[in-house]
Amino acid sequence: MTDQAPTLDTIRAAYARIKPHIHRTPVLSSRILNEKLGGELFFKCENFQKVAAFKARGASNAVYSLTDDMVKRGVVTHSSGNHGAALAWAAAKRGVKAHIVMPNNAPKAKKFAVDAYGGVILFCEPTLPAREEGVNRLMRELGLELVHPYNDYRVIAGQGTAALELLEEVPDLDIVMTPLGGGGLLSGTAIATKGINANIRVIGAEPAAADDGYRGFKQGKLIENASSPTICDGLRSMMGDKSFPIVRDKVDDIVLASEENVVRAMRMTWELMKIVVEPSACPPLAAILEGNLDVKGKRVGIVLTGGNVDLDKLPWQQ
Amino acid sequence: MTDQAPTLDTIRAAYARIKPHIHRTPVLSSRILNEKLGGELFFKCENFQKVAAFKARGASNAVYSLTDDMVKRGVVTHSSGNHGAALAWAAAKRGVKAHIVMPNNAPKAKKFAVDAYGGVILFCEPTLPAREEGVNRLMRELGLELVHPYNDYRVIAGQGTAALELLEEVPDLDIVMTPLGGGGLLSGTAIATKGINANIRVIGAEPAAADDGYRGFKQGKLIENASSPTICDGLRSMMGDKSFPIVRDKVDDIVLASEENVVRAMRMTWELMKIVVEPSACPPLAAILEGNLDVKGKRVGIVLTGGNVDLDKLPWQQ
Repeated sequence: MTDQAPTLDTIRAAYARIKPHIHRTPVLSSRILNEKLGGELFFKCENFQKVAAFKARGASNAVYSLTDDMVKRGVVTHSSGNHGAALAWAAAKRGVKAHIVMPNNAPKAKKFAVDAYGGVILFCEPTLPAREEGVNRLMRELGLELVHPYNDYRVIAGQGTAALELLEEVPDLDIVMTPLGGGGLLSGTAIATKGINANIRVIGAEPAAADDGYRGFKQGKLIENASSPTICDGLRSMMGDKSFPIVRDKVDDIVLASEENVVRAMRMTWELMKIVVEPSACPPLAAILEGNLDVKGKRVGIVLTGGNVDLDKLPWQQ
Repeated sequence: MTDQAPTLDTIRAAYARIKPHIHRTPVLSSRILNEKLGGELFFKCENFQKVAAFKARGASNAVYSLTDDMVKRGVVTHSSGNHGAALAWAAAKRGVKAHIVMPNNAPKAKKFAVDAYGGVILFCEPTLPAREEGVNRLMRELGLELVHPYNDYRVIAGQGTAALELLEEVPDLDIVMTPLGGGGLLSGTAIATKGINANIRVIGAEPAAADDGYRGFKQGKLIENASSPTICDGLRSMMGDKSFPIVRDKVDDIVLASEENVVRAMRMTWELMKIVVEPSACPPLAAILEGNLDVKGKRVGIVLTGGNVDLDKLPWQQ
């Protein structure tokens, strides 16, 4: 059923479906970071996932849920990058043609990835209306099946599988955190986590420069961003009518992080853990560094969402 | 016995000694890289090791081999960085004072690391005679025990433990490769690997800009570098009278890599595997990219030696 919000069982079914295709990513910790913060942080390293992003989970769940008829026609999405690459990758694996509508200012590495996986890119202006227009035209003209980056229950269920793995590896967590953009990962994580253990707090972290999710959560209604000038290019979108109600009902809190602390968190992750993560992966640690969430004495699971960065343009060098 | 070259048994004993203190590091592969090269590369990620370098193995084996009397007096070494940090770390763990003689042009991150682990730094001119003079003075004045970065059988045995773990995880390798600087890692790796399976080829990779090891190996005698202008700051040293004979007798070949390919290999490792490795870790992949070793159809284990880089000065941005 793709018209009903996922449950823990839906997410477990999604996991069984995608498990042969994705990586079980490692969970890493940094002793130095833990000593500095006085808590224990467990990083679920989705930067090591296929296409270097958790998006491989939701995209493959959607693609492997397609009917034979949909498989023949193909899929389409708009994406700031990682979902586009993930859909192209998953579609190629199942022999489905993927069309990706992408803003013309997307990072080079992300365009390259979609291309490498054989996705067909259609560039558009970097606005939500332009993206939607592009997608609608392709759906109309080619009969393509939309796999929305986050406002899609198949995608939400797939993203929730990262929390299944995390909680299997580190069951006794006090808090689970993810970044918040369109809410696909956060809503899937909340369903999985609360389903397994309702006492675990689920917290989203958002760049303060794109705080539509935070404001919407606090006011209990879907809110649009006038603009979202954050370096977290994966988190510029707003929640949708499928992801928002789940976040509203299941998530315990949303915390914010400044751009400066996102960059600081990113650099610390590279230096202390020796892994490459993208800015969009860093709001959770950034919000902790900023003092917006006290983790003293707590065991905190954090989904590091991806590792696609342009190594020629690192944010601490600008 | 510290005056006899290690055997496989010595390395196994070293492993039992240091196992409680070090990380068992993961072995990673890249499908994209393997498809490009036509072989299977298995990277032993010592960038995730304590102090972010395999040097933690040799240093901790030396420190945990000290007599009580040596423990009281303390240890000293000269190091381009990672061994210094590793000795400071291992010494702090056992409650031993570590004095580190370090060239005044060592990367910032490496100085910081020695400092953070409580090592006492003595800066000297970036020449071998200056380093040796500094060490000799401290040995004379304070009765310190020298733990040489590579020309020390305790250190060589410790470095060999990375190969034990690698071969336990991926037993059916055709080739094992490490970078070559002073020869500590390469000699320890050769003893461990050949001891376990004499059919596995052991190959060192060296920057062409510091090819003393290559030339010495080909000529069968220890050779000095007039200068070693390589970005691989961990590989500028020359082999010693303990490491060289082992390399000469047990290693199958030494291959070279240009500076350009070292940078290319480093960037590919970051982009494809999403891990942070330092230039000195990259000559093996660089030599393969350069066409100096054919890996088609081969299973190749490569020790990625460390991940300490200055993120403000990345080599592809200079």
